[in-house]
Amino acid sequence: MRLNDLLNQTSEWLKATGTESEIVMSSRVRFARNIKGLAFSHWADEKQKKEILTKTKQALLKNKYLNNSLFLVMDELNDLDKQFLVERHLISRELTADGGCKAVDVSEKELFSIMINEEDHLRLQVMRSGLELKESLRLLDKLDSELRRNFDYACNSKWGYLTACPTNVGTGMRASVMIHLPALVMTKRIGKVLESIGRINLAVRGLYGEGTEASGNFFQISNQITLGHSEQELVDDIDRVIKQVVEYEKGARELLLKNSRHQLEDEIWRAYGILTNARIVSSLEAIGLLSAIRLGVNLSIINKVDIKSINELFITTQPAHLQKIEGKDLNPQERDLKRGDLLRDKLK
Amino acid sequence: MRLNDLLNQTSEWLKATGTESEIVMSSRVRFARNIKGLAFSHWADEKQKKEILTKTKQALLKNKYLNNSLFLVMDELNDLDKQFLVERHLISRELTADGGCKAVDVSEKELFSIMINEEDHLRLQVMRSGLELKESLRLLDKLDSELRRNFDYACNSKWGYLTACPTNVGTGMRASVMIHLPALVMTKRIGKVLESIGRINLAVRGLYGEGTEASGNFFQISNQITLGHSEQELVDDIDRVIKQVVEYEKGARELLLKNSRHQLEDEIWRAYGILTNARIVSSLEAIGLLSAIRLGVNLSIINKVDIKSINELFITTQPAHLQKIEGKDLNPQERDLKRGDLLRDKLK
Repeated sequence: MRLNDLLNQTSEWLKATGTESEIVMSSRVRFARNIKGLAFSHWADEKQKKEILTKTKQALLKNKYLNNSLFLVMDELNDLDKQFLVERHLISRELTADGGCKAVDVSEKELFSIMINEEDHLRLQVMRSGLELKESLRLLDKLDSELRRNFDYACNSKWGYLTACPTNVGTGMRASVMIHLPALVMTKRIGKVLESIGRINLAVRGLYGEGTEASGNFFQISNQITLGHSEQELVDDIDRVIKQVVEYEKGARELLLKNSRHQLEDEIWRAYGILTNARIVSSLEAIGLLSAIRLGVNLSIINKVDIKSINELFITTQPAHLQKIEGKDLNPQERDLKRGDLLRDKLK
Repeated sequence: MRLNDLLNQTSEWLKATGTESEIVMSSRVRFARNIKGLAFSHWADEKQKKEILTKTKQALLKNKYLNNSLFLVMDELNDLDKQFLVERHLISRELTADGGCKAVDVSEKELFSIMINEEDHLRLQVMRSGLELKESLRLLDKLDSELRRNFDYACNSKWGYLTACPTNVGTGMRASVMIHLPALVMTKRIGKVLESIGRINLAVRGLYGEGTEASGNFFQISNQITLGHSEQELVDDIDRVIKQVVEYEKGARELLLKNSRHQLEDEIWRAYGILTNARIVSSLEAIGLLSAIRLGVNLSIINKVDIKSINELFITTQPAHLQKIEGKDLNPQERDLKRGDLLRDKLK
């Protein structure tokens, strides 16, 4: 597989196939892992980092779950390709920094991605469409078990897995879902919901992780605690909470349909009218209007486009994707025009 | 002809057929006339007003230019029908006030309308599509000549026609054009243009005359002076000025196409996208967006609708028209919904 092949496929997590996929865009589980006897990436010198890269690469290449994967050494990529991988949620922003023998291995269909020399030696990630945390955990466990045949992980019986940052010690696991809550936002109930999520030690972030705004009414909800519970228990907890949030969102949608149907339809159809006609569209405007259209499709108000296509547009209208699709660098003005073209083309 | 027949026809002045009709929506000429020996309407008592009404009605009914006309006594109309006539520019707001033996006679195709017992005994009006002031004057002269066979007008050799308000003394004529200047507004040149128009004693008003805002980038330009020049001279003056303003507008359109084509197209297509999809549309929003679409059609950016249909929508989306079309009273919320329906239906 080559990097540009990604352009022609829909990431597994965007396919709108899993449980509650109308509201839950995707589920993600990642494990932080470090190899016993090697310094954490942050403290390792270039020689040690090189050794980490070599060892992990060998192990990844022979892992049966990563057949025909895309192995990319970050320093060999240009900025556009790095940004492209961030937009697809395959790597973190941290992995785009120069130096440090960083790499990523992306499995076919983008189900798994494994970052090397990010904060930890290995960050194993799996992403699925819909609310599929348990299935995600099961898949990542398999990948992890296969990998550990190649080296011992740094761990001890008291703390569990040892990680570069103490917040990950224990299971080393972060489980998160990307959830679409437009009706809770419209009915102004979102504040209370997020507040109660915070109280039970779950973190809420935006579309692109830590430090990003919750644009397009998308919220990333993940566990904060990694210690003192098994992976299964942590995932079960989040799963239960998310199911509750899904019910709140469904309730808010029913309320809107009952009390403000005209206003709701107006907002949704205006979003559709603008994106199927505008010539200049900013990234932020696109996300906001796509969110309204996504709700409209879920509520059968609009039936001219499917959820999978809309899910994809959240990603393909991002700056690096537009430039990869066009095959050349574009300045912000050119991107806004190209974004308009793409949206009209895909939504009509 | 009956009042409701008007609903099924396009007013002559909206047909987009005359000179420069892309930019000049319509031309209007009106004569203020009073019958010799009868008190001005303002000072007349009910008996005198009744006499004015009877005399003028007799004369109008046998006027060959008003065959099969629609003669309406204002006190016999409900508020909705009165407002409907105002929206069609067939009567002034002043004519809708209760009492005073007011009436209007509307000719077939709404070419002529004659108000009785407004400020003057008679207000004769002709409206044509495009820049057709000279032709309008010619037509109104014919109607006026035919009418004066029935009574002597109040006039003297020094002042000319005597009118209730001194600003109309002399010719008693007001000639005006409704002109669409979106490009001069967009390029922020409109201020200077209006300023120079004011300096040569022409008045500028909005879509619905004195005291109304210039919404939808429409401006009504008319003569202020009625005295000391012949009707022909006054009309020639305005005609010359309007031709100049039309050239300015054309220049501004070329400039926009040359320097800001993408922004222009974006604004026009967004307007089209919203009006072909929105469910709730206010009167003010409709006028603003129709203005952008009208420009788009003139510049061949949009070819899905013709200028005549857009011209009509400026009128048919007004409150009384919506209620007449629907055949019942509608509250403001219901009107905004109905307006959305009508716009989607006519623009798609």
